[in-house]
Amino acid sequence: MKSGLNFLVAAKRCEIAELQALALASALVNVTGRLVHGLQRERGLSNLYLSSNGARFAPEREAQTSECLRIEGELRACFDSLDTESVMVGNGARLFSRIAYVLHGLDALPDLRAQIEGQVWSARKVTEAYVRLIAGLLAVVFEAVDSATDPEISRLLVARFNFMQGKEFAGQERAAGSALYASGRADASEQQRLLHLIDSQERCLQVFAEFSSATLAALWSQNQPSATLAELERMRRVLCTATQGSALDANQSPVWFACCSQRMDRMKDVEDQLAQELLRVCENKIAAAHQDLQTFTALSATATCEADSLTFFKDAPPPGGAMALASNAVPPGLTPPQGYGLHLERSILELVQEQARRLQSMGDELDTVRASLNERKLVERAKGLLMAHRQLSEEEAHKTMRQMAMNQNRRLIEVAEAVLAMADVLPDRRR
Amino acid sequence: MKSGLNFLVAAKRCEIAELQALALASALVNVTGRLVHGLQRERGLSNLYLSSNGARFAPEREAQTSECLRIEGELRACFDSLDTESVMVGNGARLFSRIAYVLHGLDALPDLRAQIEGQVWSARKVTEAYVRLIAGLLAVVFEAVDSATDPEISRLLVARFNFMQGKEFAGQERAAGSALYASGRADASEQQRLLHLIDSQERCLQVFAEFSSATLAALWSQNQPSATLAELERMRRVLCTATQGSALDANQSPVWFACCSQRMDRMKDVEDQLAQELLRVCENKIAAAHQDLQTFTALSATATCEADSLTFFKDAPPPGGAMALASNAVPPGLTPPQGYGLHLERSILELVQEQARRLQSMGDELDTVRASLNERKLVERAKGLLMAHRQLSEEEAHKTMRQMAMNQNRRLIEVAEAVLAMADVLPDRRR
Repeated sequence: MKSGLNFLVAAKRCEIAELQALALASALVNVTGRLVHGLQRERGLSNLYLSSNGARFAPEREAQTSECLRIEGELRACFDSLDTESVMVGNGARLFSRIAYVLHGLDALPDLRAQIEGQVWSARKVTEAYVRLIAGLLAVVFEAVDSATDPEISRLLVARFNFMQGKEFAGQERAAGSALYASGRADASEQQRLLHLIDSQERCLQVFAEFSSATLAALWSQNQPSATLAELERMRRVLCTATQGSALDANQSPVWFACCSQRMDRMKDVEDQLAQELLRVCENKIAAAHQDLQTFTALSATATCEADSLTFFKDAPPPGGAMALASNAVPPGLTPPQGYGLHLERSILELVQEQARRLQSMGDELDTVRASLNERKLVERAKGLLMAHRQLSEEEAHKTMRQMAMNQNRRLIEVAEAVLAMADVLPDRRR
Repeated sequence: MKSGLNFLVAAKRCEIAELQALALASALVNVTGRLVHGLQRERGLSNLYLSSNGARFAPEREAQTSECLRIEGELRACFDSLDTESVMVGNGARLFSRIAYVLHGLDALPDLRAQIEGQVWSARKVTEAYVRLIAGLLAVVFEAVDSATDPEISRLLVARFNFMQGKEFAGQERAAGSALYASGRADASEQQRLLHLIDSQERCLQVFAEFSSATLAALWSQNQPSATLAELERMRRVLCTATQGSALDANQSPVWFACCSQRMDRMKDVEDQLAQELLRVCENKIAAAHQDLQTFTALSATATCEADSLTFFKDAPPPGGAMALASNAVPPGLTPPQGYGLHLERSILELVQEQARRLQSMGDELDTVRASLNERKLVERAKGLLMAHRQLSEEEAHKTMRQMAMNQNRRLIEVAEAVLAMADVLPDRRR
């Protein structure tokens, strides 16, 4: 028959298993981030290649494609190493279903590249294809973030996801701006789209700053030299304020592209630092949990003495004693000090209560961090509603909402809330 | 290298594993519910035994104790069968830590019974001891409920937990009322406590009605015959409206006890029905998931034909085709119909997207259901705050909040919210 102490040990083992799953998820997020970065470059170069009717950027594009193939291999290996047979209770099902989707996208990449190579698809269509694939990869990251059970790691993952999402908006801004400059003519709806991408990007970077460490937020500030920022803002102004139909300097297209790219490479540096910090935090937490486990196991071995069991029904003493016991009184591998057994039952009970409180306060903190993920969930929910009620595809639903946001000059989340609020009055056309 | 379809299968396997863990959790909740019921009776009989100075209810109490020992054995076996070595990512750590606590309480039961047998402890002190142990058992149930990943099962578990909690308030009402009648004198603070227990109990039963099935809610209505209810309300009125210090008929104590007991036994019937419904829903869901899995596996075996991978980058067709394919087109064990392979890639992609949408909408629904658990979490959080800032034990913090609620005639959740709102202005006395 198992004792309370056995379950204290079991609880700690669960914590360790969760932390290890998080370390695995963090590694997955890292490789995914690298592939996203590679595909963002490939998308940009493909755009430039198609805009020049295949005259320029062919070798750069080819080199980038090989780089992406290499990272894709790593990511597939990473997917394979997720033990799909093992149980990842939590949101394993959702994570795997996102991976299933993205694998279809990766399988389709060679065909997409052939369309680009042969200049069959338009720059716009190609951009949309990459956007869709990258969105699929970000959805994998989102599920990995959503699975976090440790508040500190969860904070870093939320920062990470928002930074990646912000960088993707920056990438879409780069593509849209390049195409607009290259077209030589100002276009009001494209300008509106650019402003929307800038706005979305800035919100993501705010969330990143809120949830990441002070060091990382500082690094990101340093990584945006004023000169680059000033040049970017100048080109943004030119792009976004030109009156409808007026001329834009097509030669500025590659200059814009280079300016945006420089910024995105800097973003990549920050991401790499975030990745390192995540792995470090995971490792430290796993090591600390292992130490606790050793202490509990050592206690377990001595817990056969007489116990004053009625302690349970008396008021617990003010806290403080138990963790001191856990971390000092019984160094792993040593026998407990004399007289120690007398208070053992009381001490173990304190330990159990302290552990329960710690887990609870971790849970509370986690709920707070995870609330920041709700925004994206609301948008997805609104999208689902539009799909069901208006018989739209996912892509169409997303476009509809984005268009509503741009037309009404509102944030996507506000549109989503409005759509969800209407849910009750919409006729039910679900099949 | 694993394909998208492999991960679709993996996602389904995860779902099945989660459902199986839920079935296990439901079974645990059932045994816990039976032990709680037994201990509630044992508490009541111990009270009557002590009130009569050991003259009455000794054999009934003894019989009830044996019954509880028997169920306790079952529960311990149930705890042991939780594979503590296996990973229950999610809130395994919290569940195990609650079990660790409750095992200490169960270990202390024989000593508590000896105190009662020898009439050493007062009825009040004994009642508090049982209340604490039952609260520990309900905390185990709460964690099991909080781990649910399926919205339908989660609804039933929420209904179940609230019904159990409501029944426990009814049990405390029975004990407090018995003692008050037995004392022969009306007491204002005990009357206030009774009113509070009645109020808390009714709120729990409302949540139960909201989250359980219509059948069960109807069963609960039927299970409260008007005659019993009228008698209960009459005795409540007598108890709660007598002026401070006025006489109460001590002979009514066992009558009150019997009336409350009858109601609680009826509650037990509803609980048993809820338990059966839970197990049935778990079984059905597991069977359905297995069927899906078979279909996916059958598809997997045929998915080697040429695929039109660019489908991924085209707009998805209106939904409806994919699930039809999954449930009809490929009966397990049959080869797919002719011409089927042509659309396979498209169909699998639809299946993947439909699966992702289904998981997402399940997640949304789950969030809604789980919001109902937040009330308890807020109360726990406020309690933790009081413990840290005022150096109170958990018991003292709980009593303080309950007292505040009674004095201010507010609900416990309102007091908790007020406490949490004050958090920022409280001096930080954390150690």
